[in-house]
Amino acid sequence: MILETIKSRQDLKNLSLEQLNILCQELRQVLISTVTQNGGHLASNLGVVELTVAMEYVFDDNDKIIWDVGHQSYVHKLLTSRFEKFATLRQKDGLCGFPDVEESPTDAFNTGHASTSISAALGIACARDVKNEDFNVIAVVGDGALTGGQTYEALNNIQNTKMFIVFNDNEMSIGKNVGSATRNLSKTRVGSYDKNKIKLQNFLNKIPYFGPHLFNFIKKVLRAHKLRVMPNLYFDNFDLKYLGPIDGHNLKDLIFYFEGLKNNVLKSTVLHVRTTKGKGFSKAEENPEVWHKYLPETTTNPVSAKIVGKKLVQLANENQKVVAITAAMGYSVGLGDFQKQFPKRFFDVGIAEEHATTFAGGLASQGLKPYFVVYSTFLQRGYDQILHDVATQKLPVTFLIDNSGFVGGDGQTHQGLFDLSYLGNIPNLTILSATTYQQLQEALDFSLTFDGPLAIRYTKTVLTNPVGLNKDLSWNVVQKGKKIAVISVGAVATQQVLEAFWGNEDVEIVFATSIKPLDEKYLATAKDKIILTVEDNVLLGGFGQSVQAKVDQKVHTLGVNDKFVRHATVKEQLIENGLDSQSIKDFVKNLL
Amino acid sequence: MILETIKSRQDLKNLSLEQLNILCQELRQVLISTVTQNGGHLASNLGVVELTVAMEYVFDDNDKIIWDVGHQSYVHKLLTSRFEKFATLRQKDGLCGFPDVEESPTDAFNTGHASTSISAALGIACARDVKNEDFNVIAVVGDGALTGGQTYEALNNIQNTKMFIVFNDNEMSIGKNVGSATRNLSKTRVGSYDKNKIKLQNFLNKIPYFGPHLFNFIKKVLRAHKLRVMPNLYFDNFDLKYLGPIDGHNLKDLIFYFEGLKNNVLKSTVLHVRTTKGKGFSKAEENPEVWHKYLPETTTNPVSAKIVGKKLVQLANENQKVVAITAAMGYSVGLGDFQKQFPKRFFDVGIAEEHATTFAGGLASQGLKPYFVVYSTFLQRGYDQILHDVATQKLPVTFLIDNSGFVGGDGQTHQGLFDLSYLGNIPNLTILSATTYQQLQEALDFSLTFDGPLAIRYTKTVLTNPVGLNKDLSWNVVQKGKKIAVISVGAVATQQVLEAFWGNEDVEIVFATSIKPLDEKYLATAKDKIILTVEDNVLLGGFGQSVQAKVDQKVHTLGVNDKFVRHATVKEQLIENGLDSQSIKDFVKNLL
Repeated sequence: MILETIKSRQDLKNLSLEQLNILCQELRQVLISTVTQNGGHLASNLGVVELTVAMEYVFDDNDKIIWDVGHQSYVHKLLTSRFEKFATLRQKDGLCGFPDVEESPTDAFNTGHASTSISAALGIACARDVKNEDFNVIAVVGDGALTGGQTYEALNNIQNTKMFIVFNDNEMSIGKNVGSATRNLSKTRVGSYDKNKIKLQNFLNKIPYFGPHLFNFIKKVLRAHKLRVMPNLYFDNFDLKYLGPIDGHNLKDLIFYFEGLKNNVLKSTVLHVRTTKGKGFSKAEENPEVWHKYLPETTTNPVSAKIVGKKLVQLANENQKVVAITAAMGYSVGLGDFQKQFPKRFFDVGIAEEHATTFAGGLASQGLKPYFVVYSTFLQRGYDQILHDVATQKLPVTFLIDNSGFVGGDGQTHQGLFDLSYLGNIPNLTILSATTYQQLQEALDFSLTFDGPLAIRYTKTVLTNPVGLNKDLSWNVVQKGKKIAVISVGAVATQQVLEAFWGNEDVEIVFATSIKPLDEKYLATAKDKIILTVEDNVLLGGFGQSVQAKVDQKVHTLGVNDKFVRHATVKEQLIENGLDSQSIKDFVKNLL
Repeated sequence: MILETIKSRQDLKNLSLEQLNILCQELRQVLISTVTQNGGHLASNLGVVELTVAMEYVFDDNDKIIWDVGHQSYVHKLLTSRFEKFATLRQKDGLCGFPDVEESPTDAFNTGHASTSISAALGIACARDVKNEDFNVIAVVGDGALTGGQTYEALNNIQNTKMFIVFNDNEMSIGKNVGSATRNLSKTRVGSYDKNKIKLQNFLNKIPYFGPHLFNFIKKVLRAHKLRVMPNLYFDNFDLKYLGPIDGHNLKDLIFYFEGLKNNVLKSTVLHVRTTKGKGFSKAEENPEVWHKYLPETTTNPVSAKIVGKKLVQLANENQKVVAITAAMGYSVGLGDFQKQFPKRFFDVGIAEEHATTFAGGLASQGLKPYFVVYSTFLQRGYDQILHDVATQKLPVTFLIDNSGFVGGDGQTHQGLFDLSYLGNIPNLTILSATTYQQLQEALDFSLTFDGPLAIRYTKTVLTNPVGLNKDLSWNVVQKGKKIAVISVGAVATQQVLEAFWGNEDVEIVFATSIKPLDEKYLATAKDKIILTVEDNVLLGGFGQSVQAKVDQKVHTLGVNDKFVRHATVKEQLIENGLDSQSIKDFVKNLL
């Protein structure tokens, strides 16, 4: 295998084009076999095999490549001394599924959330210039990331700093792209520029004498205004050179262009590269949205996104005011059926959580009932808008927050471990947590008539225990106990609590459903008990601290103690943070 | 006075053009006399007198106008039943300095932070369509707000929903605009399109027979590609009609265009209006950046921005790695001298806090020492980026957070009352609070060699008490006391504590400088005392709760109790939240 001999960019430079093409085949085999085993992002990595090989072949070790989102960095990892460890992808202490500066110096900057790469790359390029150093900086950005405002902010800021942007255009991001700017991009793909140019030239050539002069004159006028009919309007906003589009699976072309960038081009440049997601793996090519992220495990617990999707369709049937919003995650958050059945009441705004939040506020201000369904980690982008646009005006927007708590293999950039803290400090916001199937459904029922900003938080899967949501939002005491009240948040943490204490008559087991406001009546009844809170959130600013503020006795708190949690299985993440049933049991033993 | 007779848009419709022009003069007089008395935004409001009058004249009561940022909404307020209360502007229980849905139904949506208006307006317009209603929605956006990514996200999302955007182009936002997209806007102002078109037409007319046909053909080809040479590239990204630029101080023209929008135009449209900030008040016209916000009060305490600005210049002289970043607030945060002396190490990224944060991370990743100087309320936009880009990688970015705590007249959208909570939950982030002149300087000294993400928080002014920053970041016990330890955060709250307890031998007075980590050694020494924390932050997720998590005794906490704080003087805001010296004294009396 050629792949086994490659440890750095330097090693690639000794290979012939033929060998590089063989290397690409090897890379595809490794990707398919490992990702179908470990889970992870398959289609996006299959799409950038040639692109990555060409970049690593052309650029030098000190050049910096920043991968936007970063789920497509597996090929890069395979080429930079991580082939042998690749089977540990997304596993505890193994390779991270995203660029990771702790893992390798060739990972120039951590990514995970969309639309950050040009900001980071520009910072790196400006630092290079301040320090009078000399290397290349390349940001690789997919078409999805263009819908995120931060990409625009960064492009707008490039000005005289030299850097390259590889626009990896696979005609879809996680879902399909939305928005007029990206539609304009698509137009370039089928653009009739060449045809029209020839038509015009032919027409002019019929004119004796004036014709050819005229054609040149027109070209000059157009160029003077920087108005090339191709390639696209989006990048024309900025003072950037634009090359392409070129075939992102043709190694020879890619190498030609990258060598041009490296050796000849003096100005910041966008290279437009067209790739096919899932290239070389027919199932993924045919259905890239499904194969975007490959999840090998099946879970026995009901999947929250399915429950939410079904319930929202029901609510929308009952009530004309119900509308749904997604930030390019409709499929993942369960809105597929909603979109089909209520296309006019469904809004996919692109990867744009800031806009999505204020937009939901606008909808709510007119008496509609908007549901913004979003992963916990991505809603972090909307913090200011929740506070400033929704909460100050007490607008009845409901945030349905999926993938809260531990998320397993995606690791530190994707954990839903901060939502109780960042939402908890916002005035006028009510926060519910759904632990069971039934609670999740009933929280949605509750939301329909609730007149104010509301967040409903849930993990990827919920429990099947027959516990519903109390109408007055009081907590569920599912087991009475004599000495200690264990109050837990989140299905995953709660399952550990149940495993630890079910049947133990010393331990009262309480599902905390309303996180804000807290159930102060319950807390008053527990004033002679030891209180332990268990949450799948950081402790700082979290549930336990807010309980402590309401009671006189010392509250014991279990949760994530001021750290980022890296990739591993959810079970391993629980153990690592002392939140598995055995650790909780041991902790309680010391208290009693 | 005509102004006294105007209670609603309906009343305006009875006025002649001459009367409307007189009304504009009256409005300018009222603006100047009230704002120079009460403080507030003068230049921006003087700039939109005719624009507002024309819009309110043409549009109907059920049409919605959303003012981006909202500091330019005074004229609107004066025309919608608030003339008589206008002298209460920015005062407690008086008119808010920004649109305020609680104040009037004609304020369609609250604004305050930049770049939200198109999101809100689009939400309102989509809601109108879902409900099959019929009214106009207009967002008024300044050129500054275009640098914010959320504006791009929203424009990209408009598609088939009809709304209007008034692009209020005063060739500057708070500071001057930066970025290539806005430079391209400027190009349109001096565009040679018309000249070139005529040149081409003349040339073609010389060609017998073919000439005129050819001209039409070229026009057709260009139109087919939507490539009008005018008016500007930014808005051409989106499927929007574009009108203007027109003179924003010519009432007749404005009315003509708004009537056209209202009665004839079927498609979403941008109307480009050129206005002059400070129009009609020569001091403001000449120096609009200074007059952007008029502050009548002088303060005896030293202004933090000046201290920070001076100190950063000193650090930059000493250390080549020091670079400074602002999000269009260079003047306000004290970076004027820095920019002059170190233009290559100064980065104004536009109103783009998300980008600014990741960009700072990029700079830091290359060994530079970036300082992002920003108001507390605006850094809320960077929450995700601080966590995801800076903190996960432990990058040594220093956030200098000005205008923390209570901000007085700007009110609920601008309070710096959340930073301890939204920053407090982020792993790897160290948080310092500077209470005195000396501490602020020494915190900056400390930052220079500190190798990790750091936030330094300070209020608009700091105290002159001779208290410095301890090298080990231990808290300052400025007065020993027997019974109770009062630990305070922030200059304003601390001043109240000093007034309340200076000389009282029961009360230990402690300045909390390191907020994260806490001074656990001190807390251990106080374990037999009553502890009271005093902070100019919300209690939820704030300083007091983090202290409580570290000690066994019950911690008493004073701060803002889960609410937004409206406009008033800082002193009134303190009283309203029980944080003035008398309230604190009374609170302690009950504890002892």
